[in-house]
Amino acid sequence: MPPVGAGLWRSLRAHQVYGANTDVGKTIVSTVLCNAIQKQKQRAAFLKPVSTGALDEADDRHLERYGAGALTKCLYQFDEPVSPHIAAREKTIPRDDDLLASIHKTLSGWARSDIDFALVETAGGVHSPGPNGNSQADLYRPLRLPIVLVADSRLGGISSSVSAYESLLLRGYDVQSVLLFRDDYYQNHEYLGNYFRNKSIPLVSLQAPPPKPVGSEADAQRRDEEAMFNYYEQASRDSEVLRLLEELNTKNKERIDRLEEMSERAQDLIWYPFTQHQGMQAKDITVIDSAYDDYFQTFGFGEQAKPDSELRPTFDGSASWWTQGLGHGNPDLSLSAAYAAGRYGHVMFAGAVHEPAISLADRLLKMLDNPRFSKVFYTDNGSTGMEVALKMGLRVACNRYGWDASQEKIHILGLKGSYHGDTLGVMECSEPSTYNQKVEWYRGRGHWFDYPLVKMVGGTWKVEVPGELKEDLGSDVEFDSLNSIFDLESRLSSESGQKYKEYIYRTIKELVETHGMKFGALIIEPVILGAGGMLFCDPLFQRCLTDIVRDHPELFSPNASSPKAAPSWSGLPVIFDEVFTGLYRLGRPTSASFLGVHPDIAVNAKLLTGGLIPLCTTVASQEIFETFSSPEKSDALLHGHSYTAHAVGCTVANDSLQTMSDMDKNGSWNEFKEDWKANVPATANSSTENVWSVWSNGLLKDLSCADTVESVFAIGTVLSISLKDAQGEVRYTSNAAKGLQKSLAKGSEKFNVHSRVLGNVLYLMSSVTSKPESVREVENILRASLI
Amino acid sequence: MPPVGAGLWRSLRAHQVYGANTDVGKTIVSTVLCNAIQKQKQRAAFLKPVSTGALDEADDRHLERYGAGALTKCLYQFDEPVSPHIAAREKTIPRDDDLLASIHKTLSGWARSDIDFALVETAGGVHSPGPNGNSQADLYRPLRLPIVLVADSRLGGISSSVSAYESLLLRGYDVQSVLLFRDDYYQNHEYLGNYFRNKSIPLVSLQAPPPKPVGSEADAQRRDEEAMFNYYEQASRDSEVLRLLEELNTKNKERIDRLEEMSERAQDLIWYPFTQHQGMQAKDITVIDSAYDDYFQTFGFGEQAKPDSELRPTFDGSASWWTQGLGHGNPDLSLSAAYAAGRYGHVMFAGAVHEPAISLADRLLKMLDNPRFSKVFYTDNGSTGMEVALKMGLRVACNRYGWDASQEKIHILGLKGSYHGDTLGVMECSEPSTYNQKVEWYRGRGHWFDYPLVKMVGGTWKVEVPGELKEDLGSDVEFDSLNSIFDLESRLSSESGQKYKEYIYRTIKELVETHGMKFGALIIEPVILGAGGMLFCDPLFQRCLTDIVRDHPELFSPNASSPKAAPSWSGLPVIFDEVFTGLYRLGRPTSASFLGVHPDIAVNAKLLTGGLIPLCTTVASQEIFETFSSPEKSDALLHGHSYTAHAVGCTVANDSLQTMSDMDKNGSWNEFKEDWKANVPATANSSTENVWSVWSNGLLKDLSCADTVESVFAIGTVLSISLKDAQGEVRYTSNAAKGLQKSLAKGSEKFNVHSRVLGNVLYLMSSVTSKPESVREVENILRASLI
Repeated sequence: MPPVGAGLWRSLRAHQVYGANTDVGKTIVSTVLCNAIQKQKQRAAFLKPVSTGALDEADDRHLERYGAGALTKCLYQFDEPVSPHIAAREKTIPRDDDLLASIHKTLSGWARSDIDFALVETAGGVHSPGPNGNSQADLYRPLRLPIVLVADSRLGGISSSVSAYESLLLRGYDVQSVLLFRDDYYQNHEYLGNYFRNKSIPLVSLQAPPPKPVGSEADAQRRDEEAMFNYYEQASRDSEVLRLLEELNTKNKERIDRLEEMSERAQDLIWYPFTQHQGMQAKDITVIDSAYDDYFQTFGFGEQAKPDSELRPTFDGSASWWTQGLGHGNPDLSLSAAYAAGRYGHVMFAGAVHEPAISLADRLLKMLDNPRFSKVFYTDNGSTGMEVALKMGLRVACNRYGWDASQEKIHILGLKGSYHGDTLGVMECSEPSTYNQKVEWYRGRGHWFDYPLVKMVGGTWKVEVPGELKEDLGSDVEFDSLNSIFDLESRLSSESGQKYKEYIYRTIKELVETHGMKFGALIIEPVILGAGGMLFCDPLFQRCLTDIVRDHPELFSPNASSPKAAPSWSGLPVIFDEVFTGLYRLGRPTSASFLGVHPDIAVNAKLLTGGLIPLCTTVASQEIFETFSSPEKSDALLHGHSYTAHAVGCTVANDSLQTMSDMDKNGSWNEFKEDWKANVPATANSSTENVWSVWSNGLLKDLSCADTVESVFAIGTVLSISLKDAQGEVRYTSNAAKGLQKSLAKGSEKFNVHSRVLGNVLYLMSSVTSKPESVREVENILRASLI
Repeated sequence: MPPVGAGLWRSLRAHQVYGANTDVGKTIVSTVLCNAIQKQKQRAAFLKPVSTGALDEADDRHLERYGAGALTKCLYQFDEPVSPHIAAREKTIPRDDDLLASIHKTLSGWARSDIDFALVETAGGVHSPGPNGNSQADLYRPLRLPIVLVADSRLGGISSSVSAYESLLLRGYDVQSVLLFRDDYYQNHEYLGNYFRNKSIPLVSLQAPPPKPVGSEADAQRRDEEAMFNYYEQASRDSEVLRLLEELNTKNKERIDRLEEMSERAQDLIWYPFTQHQGMQAKDITVIDSAYDDYFQTFGFGEQAKPDSELRPTFDGSASWWTQGLGHGNPDLSLSAAYAAGRYGHVMFAGAVHEPAISLADRLLKMLDNPRFSKVFYTDNGSTGMEVALKMGLRVACNRYGWDASQEKIHILGLKGSYHGDTLGVMECSEPSTYNQKVEWYRGRGHWFDYPLVKMVGGTWKVEVPGELKEDLGSDVEFDSLNSIFDLESRLSSESGQKYKEYIYRTIKELVETHGMKFGALIIEPVILGAGGMLFCDPLFQRCLTDIVRDHPELFSPNASSPKAAPSWSGLPVIFDEVFTGLYRLGRPTSASFLGVHPDIAVNAKLLTGGLIPLCTTVASQEIFETFSSPEKSDALLHGHSYTAHAVGCTVANDSLQTMSDMDKNGSWNEFKEDWKANVPATANSSTENVWSVWSNGLLKDLSCADTVESVFAIGTVLSISLKDAQGEVRYTSNAAKGLQKSLAKGSEKFNVHSRVLGNVLYLMSSVTSKPESVREVENILRASLI
């Protein structure tokens, strides 16, 4: 099933009617509103997606009778007056996706016809289960229709109305109006009127409907009907009701207006990150109304075919800059965030501690499963976390080797194309590039190795050695599978392994001995160098690099003793920047595990909070921690941000890590893994978990054979496509991927795809919760674009 | 009234009973639980803080009759069976604070006696209003008792139960158990059992109580009683009930155990920000269970007198590292955060836009009210926001003056004691100090002025000129009020104004001409230099500095033309770091307004989200923005974080700014302002708003005369006390303030005070929502400590 678009139409004001409880008069309120619309010579329609209770009492029948000609429709009818999830046990149950699609289709049809106003009525209260047993508030969330909340006028109704409102809000619904019956004894309308006025939500109190008359059956029914007709006649002319309808009309218009002008306003007010504004036009800015699961709901279509609704599902193909893990608008994470905000707000974290920070430190250390790790330092994002790692690394190296850093230039050992963030300290850790070369204070302090790349070319996996290194490292090697490339235990003793090591050893020796360079840390993005252009480094090279550094401390200082065993660091402190690659982005808790290396320091961010809010951890060994220990305050790691270990972030992170780890244990990715198992070579070490991806093997083979494609790779949630650049430009300066990006933005009938490019590379990334059918449809769009 | 402590006792398991709705059987459930406790030879007690309904039906009477000897108590009784806020209209209403204090006192008394288990029953549903009309869930939040939620077994009860649970959660309550009656038709217990099991919350379904018997009055009552006794007899032996009670017992114990070991675990796992760990002991770590309004709820008392409960309210006297604005556990901010999480999660912000980011940019620009500002750049914290400001400043200066920054060293002009964050780029912008001098890559690029300080000494406000500057700037000047010091229009033409300007002009000229220095930006923390030691710079000096820089561009480059008028920058781009001082921290939307200066770039963070989560803005002029515009991608400001403009932060920030601005307009701080008005000199410009503080004038006078105090000052929410250091140490290396800090940590009977020291300076900071009575009580504690 395609994802459903959120519902928004110019010609149709569509609302969902939720009740604060069952039996609060949703249908009567709906009838009043439809009546009033019809009497203004407009057309109203009423949709009951799922109805329970005896047929002749069904809500759509009531509306048919009293709705002054409003159109009515029911999609699924169950007889028993119980929750739909129980009633539905007896019948064929519509799938949630089908139900949503039917609603969307019905409303879109109405929007094309002469209907001006539509109500979609829910059953029971906001959390009453739908046919498949999940809460309606969750079930209908993808449509995110503006809400008409019918409050409860009975004793206890204040509480249930406010709670219902809060449940809707924390799912990102806009409650646009509240209606309830006047009850002069309980006076809920007074209290709730004030309450919602403070939130700028109009509340209308209606006269209560007439009581059921007593008397002989037929007569009573006649009198009941008459009383109800009179009631609706009056209520539908109630000036408050008419004002409300006017307001709803205005709100729909204003919402569209705001969406329409939003890209212009953004052009006016926003200085975008990583963006050359020259030539950028308002129309290039994607207007996001909301998001759910893997999809943005976007507004504005440019040259694309206009869909039924003003909003369209757009697959979040960059996983929102690599952060998304558990889907947009995840109600569990919202609730976790709200709980922490309610329990703590933010409480300062110098000399104090709170439960979520401790739990997260504990949980993270267990998940990283590295015997070297002992201490967790919290910051706000990958860049600041890497600054902390850098400060740690420089200090321990200078301390052990007796270097006076105020007099000497200490360098970083790394890889070409590395990127560790945008703050100036970590910018210094990358070699000169488009990103940093024009930053006034940037100098670059380090040596960065060239290295062989892993890629699939023409259907074959290979490790490609750059031309200038062939003499040192030998020629390209082909592999029968990605798994074989990661079979490092065999490859270490291969010719490649030997050549890599010799080359690395020789290079460092020359840098230190001939050029007099001093190195303070080895910094690596394991497996994939992200921002540098989605460069898939041969894992064997990264492994050999750490091995040489650790096995040959004498390379770095004559003061160095023999290699030290874990948990001590040896040679140089090894820092792994797993900001992007860690925490299941590549299908495993750590990307270090692919290299079989335990770093001394690791930095995690992005997926740490499941893709909700900024938080970062820098984890280090006890030995590194103790290097900062002294009687002098000034020897401490004097780093800290105001919101260090903020409770909301830590709580959400605890939930996210737990969820991802549960998914791992429960085999949630087995369907994806199955596709990659077929490729495991007989020689592979059976104890090593296979390398796998949500992107299919078949897709890789096909794309890698396409004319315009230079190479591809996939691992975990990441897919990378290098396109041939006619001008021979590569990486950041190439425009080769723009065409593919445009084609994805056009998408298929079902949805379109947001993607990011890095020069000639277009990458796509799913959440860890993305369903196979979503990923496969993205693959279809890719095939259609490239093959 | 003192703030109430959260309720937690070793010997007493106290719970609050909330109902998913009214009439769900809270009292019957309470009676079952009390019965079961009593029958295990333990003592149960039942507290009904507020009861409505006829006296003989009151819940505590029911419990008295059927509770198997459980102790019962009702604090306030109203006769009408309506919401307490209506019932209470007729009677004397207890203040919320009194009600909370009574509950706490009652429970503490029970904890000291032989009571093992206590239930505090609410009235109606979770949001049913208390006697003063606010929701009970909010009213009782300061106690944060663990919750026994009685779910609703009727039709619609699934929804109301889940919503009630969510409303409790988003206020930071721990729901420890759910009970409800079995109803085999609606089967809510089945659904809810699964639901809560997934959240690791035990749910117990009880047999429904017997129906009311029919028949003659007396007989029916006798049979009813008999049936109820039988019912309770059976239910209280229900194995599920007994297991639940055991679980509640375990949870109470585990909670205390966790709190007890938390500081040890922190010592084990956490690398603290800005902390020298050597010598730090677990007992030095404050264990925070939760927080509400201005208070942490802290565990563990060291040498302090043990209060009634295991938790004690601790005034958050550092405003959680200067972030707190709207109080901890603010339910409105929690709901905003949850709404944004539900509507968006995080959606990427390169080439895309969403409503909260646009609204915030718009709102912020209006609030900053600076005609130079045009564009908003988002980052995650003050440090990264200042890195962005720095990159902007360096670029525009180098561009205008034609400097090749890759070849030349470009410096910053600033003030001694400035501090702009912990990332390496902005560390370079501060002069060498304890904070940075041992950071291996730190060099420091700039010139930093000495300057006169504002302080109250011996009851008199003065501007104190450092000894070495007296020749240049003249001697100390006394003022009759703080307002007079800020009367810059008069002071500019005074002798001081002239001397300041001459000195600044001469100094810059010499730096450039004699030392050949090039400057790329002027960076100022307006009014107070925070982390550098709470240094209150004479605002006239900061004003003169910006005036000279702008009036004399020729100082900086021979290429400079004559001074440029706003909105163009002149001389140097002027960057104001308002991370700490902005957004009402000093009582005004901007601290720039105190200087009468419109900076070219400003950075805001901390209070931006009202003290909830990290977010930062760097605001700049259109001219600065356009300097980065070019056909080259590499000329753009290539900076950006994954969570740039995250929707949760922007939404919360919108709410926070709106709330603070409303408070400003509504005169929320009039009581504080009144105290400072008395001091306005007749000569003051009536159009200038007065300078004021939440800290009283009288306190300042008294403290400034205390023997151990060197000087004091207060402005807005900030109070700073400089203590005399016997060893002559100042700033970061002094320990003079430790004694005062210890005394505040001991506190008064009502609460104690968390504070932070910067060397010989102890500062205190309130929220913008702090109530006068809280602040005055902190003042009492200060007086008792110092005078």
